[in-house]
Amino acid sequence: MKYIGHGNKEIVERVLSPIEVKEKIKKIKELKEVVISSRIARECIDIAYGFFTPLEGFMGKEDVNQVCKKMALKDGTLWSIPIIFDITQQEIKEKGIKEGDTILLRYQDSPFAFFEIEEIFKYSKEEIAQNILGTTDTKHPGVKMIDGFKDTFLGGTITLINTPQFNPPFDKFWYTPRQLRKKFSQKGWKRIVAHQTRNVPHTGHEWLMKGAWFSANGDLPVEKLQTGILVSCIIGPKRVGDYIDEAILLCQHKLHQEGYFRDDIHMVSFVLWDMRYAGPKEAILHAIIRSNLGCTHHMFGRDHAGVGSYYDPYDAHRIFDQIPLSSLNIKPIRILEWWYCPICQEVTYSGLCGHIEHQQKFSGTMIRSIIQDKVQPARLLMRPEVFEKIMEAAEHYGFGSPFCSEEYLAQRQPVFELLPL
Amino acid sequence: MKYIGHGNKEIVERVLSPIEVKEKIKKIKELKEVVISSRIARECIDIAYGFFTPLEGFMGKEDVNQVCKKMALKDGTLWSIPIIFDITQQEIKEKGIKEGDTILLRYQDSPFAFFEIEEIFKYSKEEIAQNILGTTDTKHPGVKMIDGFKDTFLGGTITLINTPQFNPPFDKFWYTPRQLRKKFSQKGWKRIVAHQTRNVPHTGHEWLMKGAWFSANGDLPVEKLQTGILVSCIIGPKRVGDYIDEAILLCQHKLHQEGYFRDDIHMVSFVLWDMRYAGPKEAILHAIIRSNLGCTHHMFGRDHAGVGSYYDPYDAHRIFDQIPLSSLNIKPIRILEWWYCPICQEVTYSGLCGHIEHQQKFSGTMIRSIIQDKVQPARLLMRPEVFEKIMEAAEHYGFGSPFCSEEYLAQRQPVFELLPL
Repeated sequence: MKYIGHGNKEIVERVLSPIEVKEKIKKIKELKEVVISSRIARECIDIAYGFFTPLEGFMGKEDVNQVCKKMALKDGTLWSIPIIFDITQQEIKEKGIKEGDTILLRYQDSPFAFFEIEEIFKYSKEEIAQNILGTTDTKHPGVKMIDGFKDTFLGGTITLINTPQFNPPFDKFWYTPRQLRKKFSQKGWKRIVAHQTRNVPHTGHEWLMKGAWFSANGDLPVEKLQTGILVSCIIGPKRVGDYIDEAILLCQHKLHQEGYFRDDIHMVSFVLWDMRYAGPKEAILHAIIRSNLGCTHHMFGRDHAGVGSYYDPYDAHRIFDQIPLSSLNIKPIRILEWWYCPICQEVTYSGLCGHIEHQQKFSGTMIRSIIQDKVQPARLLMRPEVFEKIMEAAEHYGFGSPFCSEEYLAQRQPVFELLPL
Repeated sequence: MKYIGHGNKEIVERVLSPIEVKEKIKKIKELKEVVISSRIARECIDIAYGFFTPLEGFMGKEDVNQVCKKMALKDGTLWSIPIIFDITQQEIKEKGIKEGDTILLRYQDSPFAFFEIEEIFKYSKEEIAQNILGTTDTKHPGVKMIDGFKDTFLGGTITLINTPQFNPPFDKFWYTPRQLRKKFSQKGWKRIVAHQTRNVPHTGHEWLMKGAWFSANGDLPVEKLQTGILVSCIIGPKRVGDYIDEAILLCQHKLHQEGYFRDDIHMVSFVLWDMRYAGPKEAILHAIIRSNLGCTHHMFGRDHAGVGSYYDPYDAHRIFDQIPLSSLNIKPIRILEWWYCPICQEVTYSGLCGHIEHQQKFSGTMIRSIIQDKVQPARLLMRPEVFEKIMEAAEHYGFGSPFCSEEYLAQRQPVFELLPL
């Protein structure tokens, strides 16, 4: 089946089959090797399975430059965040890496991918930060990440030679773009609205999804439902105090298992991605990735992918008015806030409810502090089955805590593992 | 300002100004006169103000025939219910009415409209009923209405010569199509979704509107809201036990007065119309009328304009798949059911909530019986301010009852009155 992704390019999987790998085993053993970081490993997977279509590898200098200056690849395709392979000049020198080489990327002590190096280049990290994040303040976590990049960048194509094996519970939520599109088609979904999250759901999130479902469904007939919601969790680096990944996935999934959503209109999967907290520019990238997944619509709430006060809460809404709609195969569903209204006695939408002075905002911090104390929040705030699942995930995966502890960060089972070749 | 209505025809008002009437007063006094029914009076108003654009009068034989056979006017414009002026052969004979005559229509003892008669014809009432309503069973109220038509029909254009004066509280909800479009433009609404009702609102109705608002808004930006809801009440003949018209309008209006909707996205008006209960065909006509009002979207719930079990609950959804979308300037928003879910502990949508076996449907009959006993329903069922307004309207307009009594039907103040010329 042919699936068309971003930039109207076909979604291809750059992954060798075990037989192809076997045939090349001699070649593999002769290659220069570079051990990669977990961020680069995640991005290799994104590239190889088409999450980043039309990218087939890490960016060369002109792509990075155009993304910084014009929010586009060098061929003009909309793209908002550079995808960069960083390395030290010293390692290049020591290993004698040159343009034209194919090198072997190793991860978790295993051969992982071929990297056909087309370009070795340098680019100002400050300029990337300024152009993409709008700041060079190192308190911004995205600036910190870019600032931590090594001094030299490699551009070139990636081919995975070792299929990542996802550990439970990730395995049942792992879908490549091609698998997801097949799944959508099996479900009979004509429109799919993506809900990006790194959270355990409260009822405000439920209504965010419900409202967006109506927006995406528009004037489609409803007798046979053809619009679905994809909860697309971001799985990447964690910090102490974050919800553990396992709780996020399992609790989102719980919503349809327990009937808070019909299970024929709701499903959960994830994308491996290290948040840049780039606000509007990251919203564009999220839209691109979800369009590659086959989503037709993408929710953008208040302060999407923002951090601190670097962006206006609605910058990530406005950026979609600044690009031609035809540059994306996905439509933004822009959303104001859902809050609890004590007059309506229900969760209401700030664009519809007039009891503005009575609004009770959902406070992530407040809910976390309740959960921290292992107290069950009110049903209208968080579903009891979700709360139970948080506690279960805490026991099973979180060393007793639903939030990332130092112990979890050091000892958690990895999201995926590689088998020896 | 030029406003384009159904059939891509301009919305024109066929209403003489007082000065024009004064100039023609001699002519008026010389005309043959016919006293009209309240249904025909309402339809004269609909024609004259452009609610029925592109119609400029009552239908001739070929229009009636094409509407019955092909759901279109003789020029091919989509139209689903014949608009008929009925009269007895005897009256035609007695008054010597002939094709080419302009006659004076009288209503409430006042001169009301000019009727330029183009055609005097007969058409089988049985065929109309069968084609439009799908039945000739006289238990069907639409069949009963058609069956009650007099034996001969007159086709020709209508020009109002006497502007209807709407009594309170109707006066503040009366907007002609041109006035309504101007109002929408003042409000900055780019999309308007029509909610047709003959009910006092319960919370299920609120959510019906909220869901439809999202559907209509789609991918429009939301920072500055550009989508509005028009509650378009149907005002026509009443039966004992119906909610009194005044309660319907005032209680719908109460929803935004009390903040259950923001008042910048919600407004109430009405259309004079005698329901035919024609299910799918009536849905098409409602869409046409609301497109003339300037609405871009129209809600269609379960069993729209249906009665008894003459139509499948979703026939009025399906008919929109059987016509070219380009034949309407309005999009149907098809809606399943909103019900109260005791597990979610909120009003939920049957297309989203999976707790189907726990559904608690909103029962109009149950709510009416609570109100009949003057007991205030629970806040999550009906807003207390709405309940108070019902009781107030009952005292003020309903001879003590929120439901039409024989006394109300006989003695109510008329919806509109005519001044003597």
